[in-house]
Amino acid sequence: MQLVRIMADGQAHWGRLDGETVHLLAGVLGDSGFSDAGRSVPFDAAQLLPPATPSKIVCVGRNYADHIREMGHAGAGGEDLPLEPGIFLKGPNALAEPGGSVAYPEWTENFHFEGELALVIGQRCKNLGAAEALGAVLGYTCGLDLTARDKQREDLQWFRAKAADRFCPLGPWLETGLTPTDLHIQTRVNGAVKQDSRTSHMIFDPVQVLVYVSRYVTLEPGDVVLTGTPEGVGPLERGDTVEVEVEGIGVLQTRIV
Amino acid sequence: MQLVRIMADGQAHWGRLDGETVHLLAGVLGDSGFSDAGRSVPFDAAQLLPPATPSKIVCVGRNYADHIREMGHAGAGGEDLPLEPGIFLKGPNALAEPGGSVAYPEWTENFHFEGELALVIGQRCKNLGAAEALGAVLGYTCGLDLTARDKQREDLQWFRAKAADRFCPLGPWLETGLTPTDLHIQTRVNGAVKQDSRTSHMIFDPVQVLVYVSRYVTLEPGDVVLTGTPEGVGPLERGDTVEVEVEGIGVLQTRIV
Repeated sequence: MQLVRIMADGQAHWGRLDGETVHLLAGVLGDSGFSDAGRSVPFDAAQLLPPATPSKIVCVGRNYADHIREMGHAGAGGEDLPLEPGIFLKGPNALAEPGGSVAYPEWTENFHFEGELALVIGQRCKNLGAAEALGAVLGYTCGLDLTARDKQREDLQWFRAKAADRFCPLGPWLETGLTPTDLHIQTRVNGAVKQDSRTSHMIFDPVQVLVYVSRYVTLEPGDVVLTGTPEGVGPLERGDTVEVEVEGIGVLQTRIV
Repeated sequence: MQLVRIMADGQAHWGRLDGETVHLLAGVLGDSGFSDAGRSVPFDAAQLLPPATPSKIVCVGRNYADHIREMGHAGAGGEDLPLEPGIFLKGPNALAEPGGSVAYPEWTENFHFEGELALVIGQRCKNLGAAEALGAVLGYTCGLDLTARDKQREDLQWFRAKAADRFCPLGPWLETGLTPTDLHIQTRVNGAVKQDSRTSHMIFDPVQVLVYVSRYVTLEPGDVVLTGTPEGVGPLERGDTVEVEVEGIGVLQTRIV
């Protein structure tokens, strides 16, 4: 099932995508489930929102060995790969809608794309066990972890480098019936393939990430977990169109202006 | 004016503290202001909540020169002091109520107190100018930036070290009529003074912090800004009582269990 979040009548609604129709949903995600509200709108008239309502966006850094090597953080033989997930946070201010545009910040000279598989949490959870971890996921979507690479290297912590406004385009929708462990993931800039990998290449798979993160923080319905980026990251220019595509989900398109 | 947030009839309310009475407030902070709702409860029967409803908690690291020196990050002559604020994030899951208890995590062996002046934002703002920055602050309170010092040193970013559940006790209330630039700040553990400084010793004062932070992220009503800790940080043990006192505000008490 595909869950979209859209604006209708000036309000944000969750909806279920059925071909060219969005059936609006009643009930709040994370409570006792949801049901059709009896109203629908045509999909091509819907203004898409990021399909998440996070209290926090939890991100994994350095989760693909080939990306760690390209950044110079490990030897070619794999030595110095992380023993535990390296986690950082973005706030809800970082979200940007699918199909939207993001302004190239005037304070960076090295603005990078990082395409990622994103998980959106469906229920409050803490100390998840491995067997129950994926059951806490409402659905899967595409994420673009925009990064001011120069500031990431200079600053004490990855704040403005990762967590500035609109540094996390997300969408286009949640796919609920997906097994996330071996999906093709590709990032294209102006149609040229830049990142091309599989989620099976993660060092810590989604289950391990959820078990680790939920040991330290309570995850809330609507929270987002970004699972890290494969090799091939690179700089963006004004006018570029970035597409992140994850197998079984769809394409998240973002224009840099 | 002192603004408290309390539980009453199973719901969270903002209230105005008037001696031994809490007058409940109507209207949502950050909108068009607020007014008395015509109901009151005795303060000593009120269950205090953290006086903030953050979408994010924005924290300054290394903002007092004496603390930077005690951590070994700058020479005694002040060389290598930061040229820009070093910012990191906690999520709303980190909040803990004033007068509450925090469990010593089983996954750290070096759990530290850091007493801080906290600002709570009153209105949505971006790109604040220096002249308007303090006008965006709803009020001031005491914050305890609990820190797993061992994990802070080991991990890629300060996630579990700083942002775990209940790592940010806040309160006891907001003081609205305060000039934050030269306040006495003291942290005591079991009554013994551990940190004793003035907010005038900050490298980046509250105005500079707000101007810097709001250049990158939109601040929302209820967001929290922690302004950094002075020298004297140290380890906690189970059973300790930590008090953070800021002149003109009051005392935030937290018990480690």
